[in-house]
Amino acid sequence: MTTFTTTRRVEFGDTDMAGIMHFSNFFRFMESAETEFLRTRGLSVSWYTADGVKLGFPRVSAACDFQKPARFEDVLTISVTLEKVGEKSMSYRFEFTNQRDEALAVGRITAVFCRTIPPNQIESLAIPADIRAKLES
Amino acid sequence: MTTFTTTRRVEFGDTDMAGIMHFSNFFRFMESAETEFLRTRGLSVSWYTADGVKLGFPRVSAACDFQKPARFEDVLTISVTLEKVGEKSMSYRFEFTNQRDEALAVGRITAVFCRTIPPNQIESLAIPADIRAKLES
Amino acid sequence: MTTFTTTRRVEFGDTDMAGIMHFSNFFRFMESAETEFLRTRGLSVSWYTADGVKLGFPRVSAACDFQKPARFEDVLTISVTLEKVGEKSMSYRFEFTNQRDEALAVGRITAVFCRTIPPNQIESLAIPADIRAKLES
Amino acid sequence: MTTFTTTRRVEFGDTDMAGIMHFSNFFRFMESAETEFLRTRGLSVSWYTADGVKLGFPRVSAACDFQKPARFEDVLTISVTLEKVGEKSMSYRFEFTNQRDEALAVGRITAVFCRTIPPNQIESLAIPADIRAKLES
Repeated sequence: MTTFTTTRRVEFGDTDMAGIMHFSNFFRFMESAETEFLRTRGLSVSWYTADGVKLGFPRVSAACDFQKPARFEDVLTISVTLEKVGEKSMSYRFEFTNQRDEALAVGRITAVFCRTIPPNQIESLAIPADIRAKLES
Repeated sequence: MTTFTTTRRVEFGDTDMAGIMHFSNFFRFMESAETEFLRTRGLSVSWYTADGVKLGFPRVSAACDFQKPARFEDVLTISVTLEKVGEKSMSYRFEFTNQRDEALAVGRITAVFCRTIPPNQIESLAIPADIRAKLES
Repeated sequence: MTTFTTTRRVEFGDTDMAGIMHFSNFFRFMESAETEFLRTRGLSVSWYTADGVKLGFPRVSAACDFQKPARFEDVLTISVTLEKVGEKSMSYRFEFTNQRDEALAVGRITAVFCRTIPPNQIESLAIPADIRAKLES
Repeated sequence: MTTFTTTRRVEFGDTDMAGIMHFSNFFRFMESAETEFLRTRGLSVSWYTADGVKLGFPRVSAACDFQKPARFEDVLTISVTLEKVGEKSMSYRFEFTNQRDEALAVGRITAVFCRTIPPNQIESLAIPADIRAKLES
């Protein structure tokens, strides 16, 4: 199990009229944390190979439990745990805390390794050994 | 169990560079379908009482399984089922299909009846009988 | 000059902690109105030709003056006027009113006809006669 | 004239199916840069006074000219210039460049000092001397 931690600030445009971060933005924050984790491994959520083939990790499921609201200008710490790397898919767990160390939310995303067949078909593939090695490094 | 159906079109700004609707927008679409369901019952997701008390249904959990991508200009049919009304919370199930009747995604949201104590504390409350009656009508 | 009118409701997720529609969403609403206008002309903001060439109308400028706020559940009427079709570009004006006929905002977008050269170069082109004819119909 | 510089990375969820940052997100990036500028001055775009009065700087106009696209994982440098502080309003200019020093866009926002009268009326006010002093520091 690999754990990675990053932070992201709640912007004004992330809030809603309830005065808190709109719940959908927790999913955006999960994705940016995932992307940053992948970047530290030399990977991404979407890229082109030298041959022009588009590869990436679209999601097949996403979930989040909300315990306390995130507020404007809060700096959220997002802890990313890569819980499982399967044949084609991988599962992340995300824990959100604020600058007062209060637990705000716990999320999960399962992503599948896919290539895009132009113009827009998407096909899942076994995760290649080199990518797997980077994920588990 | 109450079921309600609405539609919403995938806009250009809802898509991402994978050429499909960004997964976070399924959660926005669930919320707009929930809001529309509540509106047909004379309710909302956030409102003020005559006394200036702010009430609403913030979410405590949200989840979605993605089967097929939604694409730009697809008209999604969103079927909303109110599966359970508890003492303080209620649980919805959302089924997304496109204009070719392909199943795209299944989502769930659990929302809790809350009032906002200014400036920004949020407290859960038992769902009042009149609101419960409208929900179950 | 061609004028087209559509409506769109302000969703909860479109609001911010000021209790009004976040200003950036006026730009999203302009784009969805533009897309709907183009659709009535048999056009789109982004599409593939039969040969797999990606064409579209990316924006080169966008502006909006805000007079009154749009609020949750307001149904906005968006009037789209195609003010000018130049050699490569076209300019729209958008007027927003709410359900009480209050003027909320006036926006402008200039879009340029472009093709995408894979993987991701964008080149502007003269608007072809058939597309121009549809725009001016 | 005060200039302030910050950076922000283009996230996957900021892109659209054209493979570039959706134009509406330039406005979100302007706002987060403005907020960060204000924070360095001990200010914000929205806050409560000790008496519970809600103050802030809603926008009355926003505009952007787009020269080159911003792409996924680009790190944008956003230079914020406070061009003018009027009696009630202030005007910003934003310049976007990417990590290769290419100019991408130039934006402008005019914001007005306002208080919110509960539940949701908004009234413009003269910018108080202490806030003006912080802005011009």
